[in-house]
Amino acid sequence: MATITHIPDPDDPRIDDFRDLTNADRRPDRPGGRGLVIAEGVVVVRRLLDSRYPVRSLLGVSRRLAELADDLATIDVPAYQTDADTMAAAVGFHLNRGVLAVADRAPVPDAATLARCAQVLAVLEGVGDHENLGALFRNAAALGVDGVLLGPRCSDPLYRRSVRVSMGHVLRVPFAPLPGDWPGCLDLLRACGLRVVALTPMPEARPIAAAGLAGRRVALLLGAEGPGLSAAALAAADVRVRIPMAGGVDSLNVATAAAVAFHAVAPAVP
Amino acid sequence: MATITHIPDPDDPRIDDFRDLTNADRRPDRPGGRGLVIAEGVVVVRRLLDSRYPVRSLLGVSRRLAELADDLATIDVPAYQTDADTMAAAVGFHLNRGVLAVADRAPVPDAATLARCAQVLAVLEGVGDHENLGALFRNAAALGVDGVLLGPRCSDPLYRRSVRVSMGHVLRVPFAPLPGDWPGCLDLLRACGLRVVALTPMPEARPIAAAGLAGRRVALLLGAEGPGLSAAALAAADVRVRIPMAGGVDSLNVATAAAVAFHAVAPAVP
Repeated sequence: MATITHIPDPDDPRIDDFRDLTNADRRPDRPGGRGLVIAEGVVVVRRLLDSRYPVRSLLGVSRRLAELADDLATIDVPAYQTDADTMAAAVGFHLNRGVLAVADRAPVPDAATLARCAQVLAVLEGVGDHENLGALFRNAAALGVDGVLLGPRCSDPLYRRSVRVSMGHVLRVPFAPLPGDWPGCLDLLRACGLRVVALTPMPEARPIAAAGLAGRRVALLLGAEGPGLSAAALAAADVRVRIPMAGGVDSLNVATAAAVAFHAVAPAVP
Repeated sequence: MATITHIPDPDDPRIDDFRDLTNADRRPDRPGGRGLVIAEGVVVVRRLLDSRYPVRSLLGVSRRLAELADDLATIDVPAYQTDADTMAAAVGFHLNRGVLAVADRAPVPDAATLARCAQVLAVLEGVGDHENLGALFRNAAALGVDGVLLGPRCSDPLYRRSVRVSMGHVLRVPFAPLPGDWPGCLDLLRACGLRVVALTPMPEARPIAAAGLAGRRVALLLGAEGPGLSAAALAAADVRVRIPMAGGVDSLNVATAAAVAFHAVAPAVP
């Protein structure tokens, strides 16, 4: 059972993990960056508590900690209770979600293991925007995607803003970097029996609904909004598909396009 | 051809339309609210210039006005050129998109006229979040939806934040309030030959891909994330469909769910 400790002083070292978050997580990957996993708000904190990430502590106002009472009853981590102003002073901004949890990172799964078991994987190239990345994980979770593989120039899915926008689903959907040269490493997926399908707005690509992919085992390659997939990634795919678009509209947001594609390749539901 | 006038003084009355935007557009629908249409950034300003909304003027830094030179060559509106600081002082915040345009509202089309001609319409109930509403219009434009009808408790699509998030597509996709009692007014759509289809997460609804809707003329009812459609709206639909979701995930964002549904009901592309 979690111990709840009142913290009246924003400088208390026991809440150092939550200090000055905007600066602390600007470059979590750099030396000195702490690279901790931060969850904000009751819903996302609950998903962190249910996840495989080792939770270090919670910090929240009493009302939010009370909402989490059932979750806290079954775990043994410190929970620090404070008021909104003290919390804002420590964190560096006013947090209207009222509760935070912090966890250590955990080892990432192996890309080959993910690929062997998956029905549908998303494979990302150059998805650098944290909010798009978070939204994509939320959509992957909702639409039953089994995992996300990170190609070159992707952001860190565990960055605080991605965790928040994903509604905590980055903590549930397995992800792993795809090792080896890009895009040659896609051969690994093919060797695991996945069809490598590139999503592109190119007019010569096949409409995704007519490509016979529903229910097939696929690795869906997705590129950043704007540039899209690189020519090398497009060339390395087994098939190129598109979402038919109305004239005068260049593209969908990458997370939205991903949702349409995830739905299109999902097994038919009776 | 637009006249470009240098404005060095942030208090110049010629740029009053752009003044203190955050407050001015907080409640544009209220007495005193100006209810003007504001476009931000080169892409959205261009869509406003191409739209049916009567443009009143532009305000921008010289670099952004230069990017719009071809567009400005064909219209006759005042364009006010200034520097970023003067612009920030007038507008009330720093605008990194560097250019704004303002237009008057225009009469909305008639819902019945829209319904008679449309292949696919979106019909919204309680979509109050401006960003979701804007994103939904962007997705509607991309996926070839012919118009949006606004049921009860929807926000104003022409609110500045909706215009921005829609990438200006609220200025292109026709929309209209649906007149009469809700949801009885849906009979109007049925009378125009549209099948009224409610999107809901209810497990007893049919998976949308299996509902035989591709290529049919449909009015797609969409409710707000969270509460979803009201029981009355669900009961008034001809058919209830769902996007099959993975366990443990409650819902997609309403604009994302709409995109999946728009794609599922679109006519098949050869």
